[in-house]
Amino acid sequence: MTALIAVLAKVDDLVDQLAKRVGGVDRGELDSGESYQLIRDAGLLDVLVPTSVGGRGLSFLDVTKVLERLGAVDVSTALGLNMHNVAIGALCETADQATMGAGQRFREWVFDEVHTNGRMFASATSEIGTGARLRGLRTVYRRTSDGFVLTGHKSFVSLAGVADYFVVTARDVTTEEDDVSHFVVASDDPGVRFGQYWQGAALAGTSTAEMFLDNVTIPRGRLFMGVEGMSLFKLVREPHWMVSGYTGAYLGLAGALFDRITRAVAKDAARAESPVVRHEIGRLATALRAARALVYAACAEVDRARGSVEANTAVHAAKYTVGELLNSLAAAALRLCGSKALASGSDQERLLRESQFCAVMPAKPDDCLQYVGKAHLGTNMHDVRSFTW
Amino acid sequence: MTALIAVLAKVDDLVDQLAKRVGGVDRGELDSGESYQLIRDAGLLDVLVPTSVGGRGLSFLDVTKVLERLGAVDVSTALGLNMHNVAIGALCETADQATMGAGQRFREWVFDEVHTNGRMFASATSEIGTGARLRGLRTVYRRTSDGFVLTGHKSFVSLAGVADYFVVTARDVTTEEDDVSHFVVASDDPGVRFGQYWQGAALAGTSTAEMFLDNVTIPRGRLFMGVEGMSLFKLVREPHWMVSGYTGAYLGLAGALFDRITRAVAKDAARAESPVVRHEIGRLATALRAARALVYAACAEVDRARGSVEANTAVHAAKYTVGELLNSLAAAALRLCGSKALASGSDQERLLRESQFCAVMPAKPDDCLQYVGKAHLGTNMHDVRSFTW
Amino acid sequence: MTALIAVLAKVDDLVDQLAKRVGGVDRGELDSGESYQLIRDAGLLDVLVPTSVGGRGLSFLDVTKVLERLGAVDVSTALGLNMHNVAIGALCETADQATMGAGQRFREWVFDEVHTNGRMFASATSEIGTGARLRGLRTVYRRTSDGFVLTGHKSFVSLAGVADYFVVTARDVTTEEDDVSHFVVASDDPGVRFGQYWQGAALAGTSTAEMFLDNVTIPRGRLFMGVEGMSLFKLVREPHWMVSGYTGAYLGLAGALFDRITRAVAKDAARAESPVVRHEIGRLATALRAARALVYAACAEVDRARGSVEANTAVHAAKYTVGELLNSLAAAALRLCGSKALASGSDQERLLRESQFCAVMPAKPDDCLQYVGKAHLGTNMHDVRSFTW
Amino acid sequence: MTALIAVLAKVDDLVDQLAKRVGGVDRGELDSGESYQLIRDAGLLDVLVPTSVGGRGLSFLDVTKVLERLGAVDVSTALGLNMHNVAIGALCETADQATMGAGQRFREWVFDEVHTNGRMFASATSEIGTGARLRGLRTVYRRTSDGFVLTGHKSFVSLAGVADYFVVTARDVTTEEDDVSHFVVASDDPGVRFGQYWQGAALAGTSTAEMFLDNVTIPRGRLFMGVEGMSLFKLVREPHWMVSGYTGAYLGLAGALFDRITRAVAKDAARAESPVVRHEIGRLATALRAARALVYAACAEVDRARGSVEANTAVHAAKYTVGELLNSLAAAALRLCGSKALASGSDQERLLRESQFCAVMPAKPDDCLQYVGKAHLGTNMHDVRSFTW
Repeated sequence: MTALIAVLAKVDDLVDQLAKRVGGVDRGELDSGESYQLIRDAGLLDVLVPTSVGGRGLSFLDVTKVLERLGAVDVSTALGLNMHNVAIGALCETADQATMGAGQRFREWVFDEVHTNGRMFASATSEIGTGARLRGLRTVYRRTSDGFVLTGHKSFVSLAGVADYFVVTARDVTTEEDDVSHFVVASDDPGVRFGQYWQGAALAGTSTAEMFLDNVTIPRGRLFMGVEGMSLFKLVREPHWMVSGYTGAYLGLAGALFDRITRAVAKDAARAESPVVRHEIGRLATALRAARALVYAACAEVDRARGSVEANTAVHAAKYTVGELLNSLAAAALRLCGSKALASGSDQERLLRESQFCAVMPAKPDDCLQYVGKAHLGTNMHDVRSFTW
Repeated sequence: MTALIAVLAKVDDLVDQLAKRVGGVDRGELDSGESYQLIRDAGLLDVLVPTSVGGRGLSFLDVTKVLERLGAVDVSTALGLNMHNVAIGALCETADQATMGAGQRFREWVFDEVHTNGRMFASATSEIGTGARLRGLRTVYRRTSDGFVLTGHKSFVSLAGVADYFVVTARDVTTEEDDVSHFVVASDDPGVRFGQYWQGAALAGTSTAEMFLDNVTIPRGRLFMGVEGMSLFKLVREPHWMVSGYTGAYLGLAGALFDRITRAVAKDAARAESPVVRHEIGRLATALRAARALVYAACAEVDRARGSVEANTAVHAAKYTVGELLNSLAAAALRLCGSKALASGSDQERLLRESQFCAVMPAKPDDCLQYVGKAHLGTNMHDVRSFTW
Repeated sequence: MTALIAVLAKVDDLVDQLAKRVGGVDRGELDSGESYQLIRDAGLLDVLVPTSVGGRGLSFLDVTKVLERLGAVDVSTALGLNMHNVAIGALCETADQATMGAGQRFREWVFDEVHTNGRMFASATSEIGTGARLRGLRTVYRRTSDGFVLTGHKSFVSLAGVADYFVVTARDVTTEEDDVSHFVVASDDPGVRFGQYWQGAALAGTSTAEMFLDNVTIPRGRLFMGVEGMSLFKLVREPHWMVSGYTGAYLGLAGALFDRITRAVAKDAARAESPVVRHEIGRLATALRAARALVYAACAEVDRARGSVEANTAVHAAKYTVGELLNSLAAAALRLCGSKALASGSDQERLLRESQFCAVMPAKPDDCLQYVGKAHLGTNMHDVRSFTW
Repeated sequence: MTALIAVLAKVDDLVDQLAKRVGGVDRGELDSGESYQLIRDAGLLDVLVPTSVGGRGLSFLDVTKVLERLGAVDVSTALGLNMHNVAIGALCETADQATMGAGQRFREWVFDEVHTNGRMFASATSEIGTGARLRGLRTVYRRTSDGFVLTGHKSFVSLAGVADYFVVTARDVTTEEDDVSHFVVASDDPGVRFGQYWQGAALAGTSTAEMFLDNVTIPRGRLFMGVEGMSLFKLVREPHWMVSGYTGAYLGLAGALFDRITRAVAKDAARAESPVVRHEIGRLATALRAARALVYAACAEVDRARGSVEANTAVHAAKYTVGELLNSLAAAALRLCGSKALASGSDQERLLRESQFCAVMPAKPDDCLQYVGKAHLGTNMHDVRSFTW
């Protein structure tokens, strides 16, 4: 708890500065990189790194609370920090498991890069046509005497131009099998190039772009955990990283949207005393409370029994619930705040745009419900055939 | 029916040109005025004008279908045309009722301006603080020997810079009572000035701005129907104009959004055959069909018994239902189409932004339900005390 | 319209008597047969029979309105009358299509039995395990020199002990194919026996039981339309009978439940003036109005283009919508009327129990949505492979 | 935690016996008193009694878990036990607060009656017309030299014929003020009589009846806490007892209903693998998990800061959420299990009937939302004027 309190204090120091920048980044007037520099300077890249190597060693629940606090102010930046956490999360969690050789050296290198050198990591897994799935990947790798060469094209890569390293999925070019591995690519590795930045209704602060890999040479030491072909295993066992990191940031956004609605209503005494408005605010508050309780319970379950069906099911249920909550809050904002909620430049208008993306982020609503439904109907959730990977 | 078919044929000739302009107007690159010129050139300002003076004389149901067709392509322009209809609708409806003197001269003048001279009308009723309510209006008028002088400040005036005339509500400056009248102000009357254009998440095509009236002199002939103090009577008796015009345009938008979703899903065979996707599309289609059936039934009831509690109740129910439908479609678009629905410059992204405004337009969701609820619980709906006017 | 008005007048004469019996039948204290005798005496078995042979010749929309009126008072009896309509509906609809030989004789016989002799028909199609599907039917028939012999076991047969004839589905015992035909079995044919009457939360008035057929001999003239193997064709082309008859009766029940809620609320002035209650009543009224508009529009479409994809889609959408409406009304009854809605012997408590069955009757909610979804996603709905028959 | 585990073990020993009785009690064939005897024999009347006087001393959260476990098997009996808890809960909670004189003697007497003599308590507060509100109470008391005399008529008194003591609200007959006190009436006090037992769709096991008090003499020692006029204070400060006890029992019912649905679906492999069914089961499971997380979080908050606005708000949110969950589960049971869910004598049919009562029990859905809404809009929740007491 003490570690969490210390980190939240850092976050509290930060939010005013982020709040001043968030609108400008959204409108494309300010560079998102400076927001991430604030994150780096506050030492937040370290939150998951084990205390044994000098990191903060926060639990999954604690990290979620950190993302919630950040997400309430600047959800794009919170999502960016989450990308970094996703990239290194599994390594941090297993830091107490003995390993040796290449695996151990890889882990030590990552922790050192993050903790000592302040490097930021990100993921580059999605491709056009297959999304975030491993099956049918078109980025390939081939082995060389002392490493690997990667070629391919990734889409929706967050932290482009911001992160130092990208964890990239690639398929073994020598087999027909879907034999997928993870590699760490440096942003300045020769052959790495970022394409068009994604332009959409929101998310400017995630700095998302296409990534092209043209015969990028990777030393052996940057093969993830030193072992090829582990990607599917990773995906099936540890969905909490893919699913739940988003949940914290969007829970924060939901809280911020609720506060904005409540404050707008409370300003006008006649409305604040309207039983219909109270009923509606009561309904929204209840949904927010239920979502928060579910998210925290799911994260606590991850900390208790990481990778268990129960933890994974809880995490999928939580992701779905936060998405539904945001839909509900967005519709209510229009009903309760009227055209003010839609005026250009208003905070609320930005929050409404940001909120639309929760349902778009993995795991998508039906993917969440399929996971939860299967788990409750007795499907073996550790059997990879249960997945549309 | 023949008249409707002829008008719909005109609309069909128009929609391709509107479709080419709609994105540009939305982004502020094209002038909305040219879209309205297409509307004028197609003779659509005439749809409500009685056949006896050369107009199209469409029924309320038929006009709703015209707005639906337009709204599917360019909802902002459809809303603009609706503003013109709202401004002159009650006059058109009562054209077969004998009147005389000032009332008759006023009506003839309006019909002549619209039909012969191609003038476009609009309304300027909202004010900051009171919204579209009559009670507490701050725009005032005083009588002169041959007319009136108006002074005040209107907000959210659609068709600013586009319409030729604005129907303005103002309060008699000589009494403490809420004695409100309607006047026709020309856009080029000395003392008329438009302020800042409203900038928001959508609606650029409605050309909405503040309107300042600084001692604007109005000849006696431009007092609405030649009678002072009729505004409340008008509002209470004829809510279908305030409420239901929007409904047609937004029903069209809902149909367009549904089509966009369905087409996006149908492109991908695997998704089109997914039972979950079919279930969802089935649910949306059902909601769209129910909303359309309700809107048409409500409009038919207006044509059958205009101003009746039954017609007014139906019209409020229809407005509410279309708003809920749009919420439901917008949430589904995110679930079913993912980030494509939110990419800048995509049609769908624009439709999602436009759809948010249905709930913001009068009558607002709870106002609709209060009307319907009261009507079903036996409140006297012709008693002005039942209204928060 | 005149024919409808005449029939509705008959219904109005009837409803007081049905209202007095409905509670007793529900509690098992009164015999449902007497309620159906009232239906017979009022000449309501005739509503679909063509005017050319002396029947009422009502349209599908008109019959739906008759069932709605009856369903508001006694939904079980309305469902029973619907069973009779379902059994003879397709014959009535095609009465103006020339036919000859066995088909013509069959049709004439049915019309004569209904119109001249006052016979009531019903259906016996469901079986344990397959439900109402044709595929996998276990009731079989074999041919004799002058007819057929049927053996099997039907479940959920409505009007057991009430109807004179049952339209029974059976499979040709001589082939492995699912070659299914319809036959008319008389309730007093030797070998016919009814088992246990179904006991459940409601529906006592439908007089539903198991039916056993033990080598029941059927003369050739009671083969449906004189042709074997037409059952699937019938099912695929004419879902409006299977789906939509229920819709009218349950729409009536929904109206009755809404009235009961509204009256209970309106009794208490404080509650009738509560904005939250008005909001809720407004929402329910809106949903009821939308459902009714959709049901009427769907029935009008059946009358306009019977068997078309558009008509069938509309009918499935309508069935789904009425089921959702009843869920919504039932939940609201508990919120708005409290324990009174659940006291034994109260009308409302019975209506709540009856309302639960709408979702259980074919087509079930997801079946409806799958049909609508497929139709909108471009599936060929006349291809039997699109069906899980 | 150990205390909870011990109590849950007792409950587990009990549930098989309760399960055998629950259907019979529901049908009126078995006496509910024997089910409560099982509760007494298992020592469950003691769960809240402080350990210092030999009780179990469970926290509010732990007791909720006990009620959840019981509610999953026999919700009526769980609600009955909750009535006992409600009656003595506030005394148990404040057992560590020093008091003296009459208050202390009263508390000791209650604990002794429960712990040593195995007495069961209940509440008798509702009256016809005012419900559970204190304002407008018609049961009155007058003072005598050594106690009080009560006369009045209470409705919806649970545990009639079962409990030994009833905590009765009464108004001081000598003032016009709503000066309300609580008294303990013994079931065998002269002048106490129970009327007609309530007959309704469910709840037979709560043994609910009218209670008549005809000049019932109460010794001074049975004035609640020895102080007159404390009732409103009690109500405003401690809504968790009125609201939240139900929540645990109904959460258990919700879990049982979900299990029944899941098991019914899982039996049929084709359905268990249907993506639509998985989606639906996933949605229900998610709602159940969110409700449970919210209930536990609310109870933990009561244990942390009893009587605080935050705890009370959480408790109202939890009650509302469980009611909505039951609505959702009941509708899904009909969709997913069909007519089986409605067959007389089936477990599921009984669970559906029981589930309807959650929304009927205090605090009702809108009362919950008004509380939560007010709390979030900044109303002073400790001001009695905020209540419709």
